[in-house]
Amino acid sequence: MSKKINRRDFIKTGTVTGLAATMSRNIRLFGKDDRKVRLGFLGLGNQGTSLLKMCLSMEDVEVLALSEINNEKLRNAQDLVEKSGRKRPEGYPGEEDYQKLVTRDDLDGVFVATPWLWHTPMTVATMRAGKYCAPEVWGASSIQECWDLIEAYEETGMPCMMLENHCYDRSNMAVLKMVREGLFGELIHGECGYCHDLRGIKFNPGVQFGPGARGEAEWRTYHSINRNGDLYPTHGLGPIANCFDIDRSNRMVTLTSTATKSRSLQEYIINQVGRDHPNAKIKFKLGDIVTTVIKCQNGETIMINHDTNLPRPYSNIYVIQGTKGIWMEHRALVNAIYLDGKSPEEHKWEPFDKYYPEYEHPLWQNFLNEGVRGGHGGAGYLKSRAFVECVKRKIPTPIDVYDTAAWIAVSPLSEESIAKGSAPVEFPDFTRGMWMKNKPIFGLTGEY
Amino acid sequence: MSKKINRRDFIKTGTVTGLAATMSRNIRLFGKDDRKVRLGFLGLGNQGTSLLKMCLSMEDVEVLALSEINNEKLRNAQDLVEKSGRKRPEGYPGEEDYQKLVTRDDLDGVFVATPWLWHTPMTVATMRAGKYCAPEVWGASSIQECWDLIEAYEETGMPCMMLENHCYDRSNMAVLKMVREGLFGELIHGECGYCHDLRGIKFNPGVQFGPGARGEAEWRTYHSINRNGDLYPTHGLGPIANCFDIDRSNRMVTLTSTATKSRSLQEYIINQVGRDHPNAKIKFKLGDIVTTVIKCQNGETIMINHDTNLPRPYSNIYVIQGTKGIWMEHRALVNAIYLDGKSPEEHKWEPFDKYYPEYEHPLWQNFLNEGVRGGHGGAGYLKSRAFVECVKRKIPTPIDVYDTAAWIAVSPLSEESIAKGSAPVEFPDFTRGMWMKNKPIFGLTGEY
Repeated sequence: MSKKINRRDFIKTGTVTGLAATMSRNIRLFGKDDRKVRLGFLGLGNQGTSLLKMCLSMEDVEVLALSEINNEKLRNAQDLVEKSGRKRPEGYPGEEDYQKLVTRDDLDGVFVATPWLWHTPMTVATMRAGKYCAPEVWGASSIQECWDLIEAYEETGMPCMMLENHCYDRSNMAVLKMVREGLFGELIHGECGYCHDLRGIKFNPGVQFGPGARGEAEWRTYHSINRNGDLYPTHGLGPIANCFDIDRSNRMVTLTSTATKSRSLQEYIINQVGRDHPNAKIKFKLGDIVTTVIKCQNGETIMINHDTNLPRPYSNIYVIQGTKGIWMEHRALVNAIYLDGKSPEEHKWEPFDKYYPEYEHPLWQNFLNEGVRGGHGGAGYLKSRAFVECVKRKIPTPIDVYDTAAWIAVSPLSEESIAKGSAPVEFPDFTRGMWMKNKPIFGLTGEY
Repeated sequence: MSKKINRRDFIKTGTVTGLAATMSRNIRLFGKDDRKVRLGFLGLGNQGTSLLKMCLSMEDVEVLALSEINNEKLRNAQDLVEKSGRKRPEGYPGEEDYQKLVTRDDLDGVFVATPWLWHTPMTVATMRAGKYCAPEVWGASSIQECWDLIEAYEETGMPCMMLENHCYDRSNMAVLKMVREGLFGELIHGECGYCHDLRGIKFNPGVQFGPGARGEAEWRTYHSINRNGDLYPTHGLGPIANCFDIDRSNRMVTLTSTATKSRSLQEYIINQVGRDHPNAKIKFKLGDIVTTVIKCQNGETIMINHDTNLPRPYSNIYVIQGTKGIWMEHRALVNAIYLDGKSPEEHKWEPFDKYYPEYEHPLWQNFLNEGVRGGHGGAGYLKSRAFVECVKRKIPTPIDVYDTAAWIAVSPLSEESIAKGSAPVEFPDFTRGMWMKNKPIFGLTGEY
């Protein structure tokens, strides 16, 4: 597994064991054969437990090993597995135990749902141990992190699939189908973002964060204190990157980022506990809004918004615009489309829902037929299932290490641009030029 | 009139004749006293004729002189004045006749609605001839244009009010009132744009432009052929600048602009007349979408979108976001607001219309009471009336030469940033430091 390979070799020779080129396209979405997928989990907080539950709903999944430093959370997770009728999985409570877990010889794949700073070392360790790895979404802390992932993949051939659920959103998949069928003409511009009032996540309970705080307040808040950039770009960028064929005949070339002042987190603290509380003295580096504009090799632009401090309803924005039309979504507010020469009235929006009957993605057609389930409107299930399905078939995952690296690279690049007064900064080419030859891999079938 | 003055002196001493400081605040919106305002018009195409008609609906307006190089349009405009019961105004058909018109000694103010390249020389000539000037909206072709306006104002004391109608939109004025009353908390971020499918304006009839073409296709198209930048920033920026107190305790400091490739205009031509038509060979410099991000002195950001080549429904976007809430509008699609602790459901948008009863701007209260009229949903009337009202009272206009210069400067600055690969470029300080002392002037009363 130490031989350097590239993705094309992986696909061509099927380095792992199965052969993508000869795999059956007839297996249904939720495979009914006898093969079992043997999984381990690193991190069993809210997100890890949610992933675990979805996997436990799959009959072809065995859960053999769980790693979590909080003993109560670990026990709860072990209980969940047992209650599902499976054998109680082995628990790994030590901080460095993930090394032991990933080197077990009875696992096929590992989910990673730990704090962001652990994603890369754990994912690299998993790949180097010869297993498929599915890290939850994050933004990189450095460009070196991205290269670490790339190198681990290229040396082992083991797939790394960041679990970007929004790639699996129903509307995003339908839009991707429409893009590929040319309904928007030549793509020109995209917009997206992560607009999510996280004040109650960054501080919980009250204005607490760090050791002893609840959930992500234990660790996520430090990023807002110490970093100024788009810390969480992939919920927006992932689906847009799929539409724009990023690293598959196109690539992101440069970006500029601009941050506002930071006001809202401090105001949130002061409003609750007054100016004299020690947390009210913290100077948060993270600007309340960070706006990033990416220029692509083929001449398109992508605007990404990062907005996690201010009070507002959730949105991932989502605009796809081409020479023949435009689609715009703000969750729970608007989902509209205009197609030149196809929309019945000139210059007038249509509800996007009208297009589902004709442009539902096959994966969602199957999912709707078989019953939508799981978190995030079903997308959380689909992403987990896609990973399990690929592990089972021993085929490349539909989001790969190059997608993962390029998308999470936005964080350190935006930090660099902001630090340099919004100067343009260049994306590394993680594909080493292969973007010119690589073909799209996401959303190609109705099966995963 | 050649003495150098600054705006504060103008207000303090009332250099023109009337005294702003002592003016009555009791005059109603559509003044009923005996004073008449004597106006001239430069340019009587569609927009100039529309301004003329609105002024003819005002009883206190006399129209004495009209300049237009197209004889038919000139005659039509003269006829309109005559039909309104006024004396037939003198016509000036020569290209340089504007000099004769503005130097008449019987005019108080002049409207300018000519092609963009004429705005600055005509506005400067008007100010230097001792008249109020109201140029229609445009983007500057160079920073020097902006300084020409500033210098003419500072040497003459004659007001220059760019007629940015969107500052007078009902929702924008209500939002401005809400901003000033603190409902959004401390402002953090704004978004705006000019998203308008102008393909049928840039080419008319068919794929024609230049001499012999109709309307703005005669001249506007050349800007798309030769320039790459945000060519028309003020419809978006004007209302946002009012909310952000630009040049009145705040200022725009730097911007970055990024342009997409240019595809849509050529595709539009080819789809109509094929690849062999000479116009199909034109290489348009204007990117289909130009995204500009401005950083302000007080730490806010403003994102401006310029989108005039692609098929899409009209929008000026409009987002205002502060530490206590957010407002978002896309015309004819969505107009929504969320205010922290005030909106009834957490994280849930409300229709903006709910806030009109409490936050209608007094100018619009009066307008609604007296009867909304004129183009652009009434805003076209209000902007014209504001200018006439200020001329009549001999007071400063609510959009001044510093607003005009700063807003139109976005065009050449964005061109420069794009030419430098999205490098940040600095705004000149047209106020020469007075932004630190200047007070807001827009939307202060219910009268203009």
